[in-house]
Amino acid sequence: MHAYRSHTCAALTAADVGQTVRLSGWVHRIRDHGGVLFVDLRDHYGITQVLCDSDSPVFDGVEKLRSEWCVRIDGVVKARAPDLINAKLPTGEVEVYIRDLEVLGQAAELPLIVFGDQEYPEETRLRYRYLDLRREAMQHNMTLRSDVVASIRRRMWDQSFREYQTPIITASSPEGARDFLVPSRQHPGKFYALPQAPQQFKQLIMVSGFDKYFQVAPCFRDEDPRADRSPTDFYQLDLEMSFVTQQDVFDTIQPVIRGLFEEFGGGRKVDQNWPQISYKDAAQWYGSDKPDLRNPIKMQDVSDHFRGSGFAIFANLLEQDGTEIRAIPAPTGGSRKFCDRMNSYAQKEGLPGMGYIFWRAGENGVEAAGPLAKNIGPERTEAIRQQLGLGLGDAAFFLGGKPAGFEAVAGRARNVIGEELGLTDKERFAFCWVVDFPMYEKDEETGKIDFSHNPFSMPQGGRDVLDGDPLEVLGYQYDLACNGYELVSGAIRNHRPEIMFKAFELAGYGEDEVRKRFGGMVNAFQYGAPPHGGCAAGIDRIVMLLADEANIREVIMFPMNQRAEDLMMNAPSDPTSDQLMDLGLRVIPRED
Amino acid sequence: MHAYRSHTCAALTAADVGQTVRLSGWVHRIRDHGGVLFVDLRDHYGITQVLCDSDSPVFDGVEKLRSEWCVRIDGVVKARAPDLINAKLPTGEVEVYIRDLEVLGQAAELPLIVFGDQEYPEETRLRYRYLDLRREAMQHNMTLRSDVVASIRRRMWDQSFREYQTPIITASSPEGARDFLVPSRQHPGKFYALPQAPQQFKQLIMVSGFDKYFQVAPCFRDEDPRADRSPTDFYQLDLEMSFVTQQDVFDTIQPVIRGLFEEFGGGRKVDQNWPQISYKDAAQWYGSDKPDLRNPIKMQDVSDHFRGSGFAIFANLLEQDGTEIRAIPAPTGGSRKFCDRMNSYAQKEGLPGMGYIFWRAGENGVEAAGPLAKNIGPERTEAIRQQLGLGLGDAAFFLGGKPAGFEAVAGRARNVIGEELGLTDKERFAFCWVVDFPMYEKDEETGKIDFSHNPFSMPQGGRDVLDGDPLEVLGYQYDLACNGYELVSGAIRNHRPEIMFKAFELAGYGEDEVRKRFGGMVNAFQYGAPPHGGCAAGIDRIVMLLADEANIREVIMFPMNQRAEDLMMNAPSDPTSDQLMDLGLRVIPRED
Repeated sequence: MHAYRSHTCAALTAADVGQTVRLSGWVHRIRDHGGVLFVDLRDHYGITQVLCDSDSPVFDGVEKLRSEWCVRIDGVVKARAPDLINAKLPTGEVEVYIRDLEVLGQAAELPLIVFGDQEYPEETRLRYRYLDLRREAMQHNMTLRSDVVASIRRRMWDQSFREYQTPIITASSPEGARDFLVPSRQHPGKFYALPQAPQQFKQLIMVSGFDKYFQVAPCFRDEDPRADRSPTDFYQLDLEMSFVTQQDVFDTIQPVIRGLFEEFGGGRKVDQNWPQISYKDAAQWYGSDKPDLRNPIKMQDVSDHFRGSGFAIFANLLEQDGTEIRAIPAPTGGSRKFCDRMNSYAQKEGLPGMGYIFWRAGENGVEAAGPLAKNIGPERTEAIRQQLGLGLGDAAFFLGGKPAGFEAVAGRARNVIGEELGLTDKERFAFCWVVDFPMYEKDEETGKIDFSHNPFSMPQGGRDVLDGDPLEVLGYQYDLACNGYELVSGAIRNHRPEIMFKAFELAGYGEDEVRKRFGGMVNAFQYGAPPHGGCAAGIDRIVMLLADEANIREVIMFPMNQRAEDLMMNAPSDPTSDQLMDLGLRVIPRED
Repeated sequence: MHAYRSHTCAALTAADVGQTVRLSGWVHRIRDHGGVLFVDLRDHYGITQVLCDSDSPVFDGVEKLRSEWCVRIDGVVKARAPDLINAKLPTGEVEVYIRDLEVLGQAAELPLIVFGDQEYPEETRLRYRYLDLRREAMQHNMTLRSDVVASIRRRMWDQSFREYQTPIITASSPEGARDFLVPSRQHPGKFYALPQAPQQFKQLIMVSGFDKYFQVAPCFRDEDPRADRSPTDFYQLDLEMSFVTQQDVFDTIQPVIRGLFEEFGGGRKVDQNWPQISYKDAAQWYGSDKPDLRNPIKMQDVSDHFRGSGFAIFANLLEQDGTEIRAIPAPTGGSRKFCDRMNSYAQKEGLPGMGYIFWRAGENGVEAAGPLAKNIGPERTEAIRQQLGLGLGDAAFFLGGKPAGFEAVAGRARNVIGEELGLTDKERFAFCWVVDFPMYEKDEETGKIDFSHNPFSMPQGGRDVLDGDPLEVLGYQYDLACNGYELVSGAIRNHRPEIMFKAFELAGYGEDEVRKRFGGMVNAFQYGAPPHGGCAAGIDRIVMLLADEANIREVIMFPMNQRAEDLMMNAPSDPTSDQLMDLGLRVIPRED
């Protein structure tokens, strides 16, 4: 017989009754039923009930067992009495009578109970991660993550992509976040950087003629703490293709993502058709460039109804250039109580408030109510109701000003309204592509033009459009949103040096500066660069959505805490003076 | 029609004749055949011959094309005349008459020609890696590497392993090489380290109850230059299993490695049965702990034949403790010329020389020749011949002394003899497990006992053997050798804290020191650690063997040069003073 097991703890069924078996695992729970000891023995695969009566030659040993001891037992499989069968457990028809016992690893007193779902402070969980990971929820999250990543690879291979590894110890990459640096010993005083993303390398792979690249790539950013991101690194599905248009990239990644959510979404509905929404429309309709389409609310411009109306605040506002009044329709939200609560919400968010109208049953049928309705009168109110397609029991909220000033709040209000009214379908994954991002934005204070997103995207219209108004230039750049999160981001790249230099010039970067910062890639583009594009999908985020977790640390095996510390391994720590000497570095004493 | 291509450059056959097609790719070669321009158009998939006669509306444009320009052409597929069919090319039956042309990316004058196999200095190749990678051999090596890694993953999944990612920004790991450090910005003056291997983490994953782990893991070591290794990082297939014996690990990894070599070995023979050879036998028989079994030569102890013989050097030598005379049989090596050449080889390696005997045709049949034979006389010579199983036309070489002093040279001599005599089968992958490594070794000068290999291996015999002579203790530790290279290394781990502390004590490390250096793992072992073991396989090395390359940089997409520099991306480079300030570091000025 094998030294440790003839079966896993998930394997035994009624068919094994009578057999002598060997199991290894951890003592999950022990119960003493009047001289008979019941042990739930747990391994990675499942739980088997093993028991020991006073006839057993190893009763004394079993009596000494404590939770989380690792043991090997030999025993005889017996059928449980019909009324003791546990239908929830795959092994619930049987139990094993212990005849031999070997303690493989004792456990000291536990700082964290594995059985059950007691809550512990995160510091405890991370310090004793190896115990925390034994818990059922963590076993599930980690195997889910592993299965998701495996499925990603299978799906990419099936589309004839190959995975190529790009350097991890390399030069600073132009992703805009802070690099982690790595001092060089062979070149003291010089530093490598960990890649924020393989962006330049994947484009170089295209220039090298490889056509279809992907990588499950670790990306390193020295970030300040936030619950939904790691302070050090994250993984992305990075892909790039040559000789493609934007639609080709969509057609490649869409089945991968959709397939993943169907495979691992636990039966939640997965949208089949993903609309393409321009950045501008997304802002107007949803107040976000990552709209949550589970929420059916679509905001509308209702400026015309307020122009010259009796509601002086909006009427005056509209006389300024670039202002607009926008409505958030709220089907079923038609009560003063709800409307007042939303108004308070807006005030908490820093706005003066949200005007509202709601429609209730009046003497002559549907009647508009609320202070706004009185101010603008029944005709305008009715026109608004008709435009928004609302009726009895519904409401609408109004925000005004320059869109850039209120869109984000409007978007959040839309979310809250959708949630509170139960309009947002929680059992659904809703996707949309957001396209046509503007290439440039103007700093309101300095008037300076800068890239709004990725400077390496191809402008729609190529070189010619760069002679016009930069703020009108759209890029071949796109995001995929799912349930209000950005899952994927990508672009068709600017592979022509002359267009790239012009694009950077508009943002105030001279050719020298561009060559200095992105020399590797820019040089390469002089040697027959193919048109190419791609995207990157956030793997941690995908797993979080699938596992329904809000904290990224629930889907990472050994995460840092929010102060970027690993309490279990004691990182970061003090270097030795030899190490510093080798690297030609001195630590500046801290002034505390 | 698609913006860039209706077909790849490998797709067109006689079945497509008459069609109008669109191709994109690079200008591989251009030939002007009297007013007709022939262009070999190349993409990742293959080459198609396209051509342009003076009737073409884009003749002027095609005439301007130069090597490595990236272009899109439209054209009509025509059959080649039977005598012009190129059977070597999948597209060799057809050619495409260009009707339209778009230059997608021009190329400046090339520092490196893609077509053909002209040699370039490595610095040129690495600086213009994106051109170097377009060459056929590099396209092959990179796709091979990608396919090997994909196959590894499929094979591991098929055995119910899951891949889990371990941290890359972490604490120093105890692999014995030099760490790359990463300064912390949030904790100025403190440093993370990049992992030399996921050793501690994979063991923690076992303690966490995950049972079967693998990872295609980047490993980081700050190494001094050597042709067959990267100065910064390498990839390994890392695996670990719980509740297993050494044989279980062999049974797991063996089909993976064997399958890879069968799949990608290009028809070379792959040994099916892999012997297990003890470390001690490997040293005696092959003079190496990574023997090349393609070479049939097996060395033997022939001390008895020289004890008290007329060959005074060996006879005297044997009177000292711990000495031995070893023979390297050399079938078909029976000529004075060959024997003298091998003797010179030994002298170049720093030995006084290798004595030899060879057997030639004499008056009475087989006759032993050479100075040694004369010294020890015919009886002893004949006894040696019989022990070694040699005959007419064969030879044997002899080395004497303390085995530790000559074994390595003997091993190298065995290699040279096997090569020179054509005994080593070059068309074969020969594997063997080397097992039973000693846990400890003694420093000859200081007399100090230290770990000879991995301190975390389980001693054979457990706690008890540690009370005896440390130099007699063997570990459950193993290597897999292939064709003289170490491909895999692994161990059954020491999962019992009390045995681990004792094992370290024998090497002079107190419990405090062990807790300080390996605290994460040692703490974990107090909470019910399962017995576990595993191994790691060098992926770069595997691909090198399969691709028949001796330089690791031939199988890495973007390697560092031997001075650990990336000339293309300019790494390492000077940090900004803001970066240093953030990290609380100062660079020590160099004294040049």
